[in-house]
Amino acid sequence: MSEFSITQEDIESAHQRIDKFVHRTPVMTSEFFNSLADAHFFFKCENLQKTGSFKIRGATNAIRSLDPRQLKHGVATHSSGNHAQAVALAANKAGSKAFVVMPENSAQVKKEGVKTYGAKIIECAPTLKAREDTLRQLLRDTNAEFIPPFNDFRIIAGQATCAKEIYEEIAEVDYLFAPVGGGGLLSGSLLSSLYFSPRTKVIAAEPEGASDAFLSWKAGKIIPVETPKTIADGLRTSLGEKTFPIIHKLVHEIELVSDMEIVKTMRMVWERLKIVVEPSGVVSLAAALKVKEKLKNKKVAIIFSGGNCDLSALPF
Amino acid sequence: MSEFSITQEDIESAHQRIDKFVHRTPVMTSEFFNSLADAHFFFKCENLQKTGSFKIRGATNAIRSLDPRQLKHGVATHSSGNHAQAVALAANKAGSKAFVVMPENSAQVKKEGVKTYGAKIIECAPTLKAREDTLRQLLRDTNAEFIPPFNDFRIIAGQATCAKEIYEEIAEVDYLFAPVGGGGLLSGSLLSSLYFSPRTKVIAAEPEGASDAFLSWKAGKIIPVETPKTIADGLRTSLGEKTFPIIHKLVHEIELVSDMEIVKTMRMVWERLKIVVEPSGVVSLAAALKVKEKLKNKKVAIIFSGGNCDLSALPF
Repeated sequence: MSEFSITQEDIESAHQRIDKFVHRTPVMTSEFFNSLADAHFFFKCENLQKTGSFKIRGATNAIRSLDPRQLKHGVATHSSGNHAQAVALAANKAGSKAFVVMPENSAQVKKEGVKTYGAKIIECAPTLKAREDTLRQLLRDTNAEFIPPFNDFRIIAGQATCAKEIYEEIAEVDYLFAPVGGGGLLSGSLLSSLYFSPRTKVIAAEPEGASDAFLSWKAGKIIPVETPKTIADGLRTSLGEKTFPIIHKLVHEIELVSDMEIVKTMRMVWERLKIVVEPSGVVSLAAALKVKEKLKNKKVAIIFSGGNCDLSALPF
Repeated sequence: MSEFSITQEDIESAHQRIDKFVHRTPVMTSEFFNSLADAHFFFKCENLQKTGSFKIRGATNAIRSLDPRQLKHGVATHSSGNHAQAVALAANKAGSKAFVVMPENSAQVKKEGVKTYGAKIIECAPTLKAREDTLRQLLRDTNAEFIPPFNDFRIIAGQATCAKEIYEEIAEVDYLFAPVGGGGLLSGSLLSSLYFSPRTKVIAAEPEGASDAFLSWKAGKIIPVETPKTIADGLRTSLGEKTFPIIHKLVHEIELVSDMEIVKTMRMVWERLKIVVEPSGVVSLAAALKVKEKLKNKKVAIIFSGGNCDLSALPF
């Protein structure tokens, strides 16, 4: 029995459910980063995941949890980012239609990504209200099933499989660093740590310009960020009522990092590890390097959450 | 018995010799690139190799073939590129000094790389003559052992381990694409194909602006390129008298690609595979995409030879 709505068995079932449809991403090591912090780093490369981010885990779990009758009308979501591509591909693989509400000013490359996977894009004005109104109307018109980006137990259980894979591969991890936006990946990582590696302290990493998780954690209640301002576009969202309690209860610490630290870390990762990680994807490592004093001689797992970058607009 | 100076046993010994000191790099696959050519691609990621390129294989094999007496005075080479870092690290790991002659206008980031591994840099004027004169003087002054960049049987046997690993992992490869500059990697790949996967046709990929291998292959004798002009800076060198005969005898074809094709391919690799591959490193894939008609339904191995890029000077 767990005090949380997601049990160890839920995560194990999610893992079996998505196993054939997502990559088991590699864990990389680096003498360079080890020597920077005098620690043993293990980088879980979700940037190399299908669709370029961990989001495919939750989307696949949610969509494959639906029964055929629900799937018949397709699935729908609103997203300008990695969740959109994840829902599009997961639906495609499940033989279902997908509708994605996207702000009309979304990057062309992201619209292309969603279209590649065969989803239908419904454009709307670039406000949260327009998104939600358009989605509500769409759900009424199509009877499609809504697949939320993070505030959903099926999504959280799916994202939890990332940390589970880390613990299957690396024994006795002292610290796990995960980024936090809406909290799907973080709360999943916290639950997997609780069930599969209780000795591991989980530290969340958040951009200074979107510090709602930090403020909410300190206050003990959800304090949304009104006007997020950070290069880490995947982390601009605020916690939801399903992710917050898990985070509040289980997270060891939340570290804030500046955009300058994010860009500096991103450049080092590209240059040294030769992999493309997006700004949101390196926030975890930026936070680890910031608190490196306490990581000395420790085994430290770092989630690189995604790799979808607009190469025409690089910050260096 | 082989008609070549490097036998199957030489390559097997090289592999055992370097095993503990280099990465066994991953082989990646991609539905996106498969669908582009209707082929089955296997990408051997030497960009994820130590020092960021395959060069560490040959350098390690050459340096670890020396006896302690030879090692005592250190090793030396001249290079402005990946071979310099490879010799520096391989010597460092073998407990030997390394001297690297580098043109004074070499990129700061490359000098830093060489210094990081503890090698001593000797600067010279940016001409081939100055490099060779400086190296000759250095060898006289120090009694150091010269580790050539490609025209050397120990180097070729070391580079051959890359294709050997491909064949250990992937059965029945129809085509292998490898880039050609001085020909160390290509001639090693040809020999490993001959010994470990004789069914595989090896196609060399070369930039149009440095087409000496293509011209030499057609002419049946070495025709050096005088003023190479290509973004693929690792492939500007010409074949040597040890690499040319192997290539002339064994290569199936040599395909030329333009700088525009190289840059376009490089961008696709970064965007789709989320890995950093340098211009010279994607020439192999650019050539494969150029002749994709003949690759239909074939198993095609592609060597991504390196990932050392100056992020301040990207071509996109």
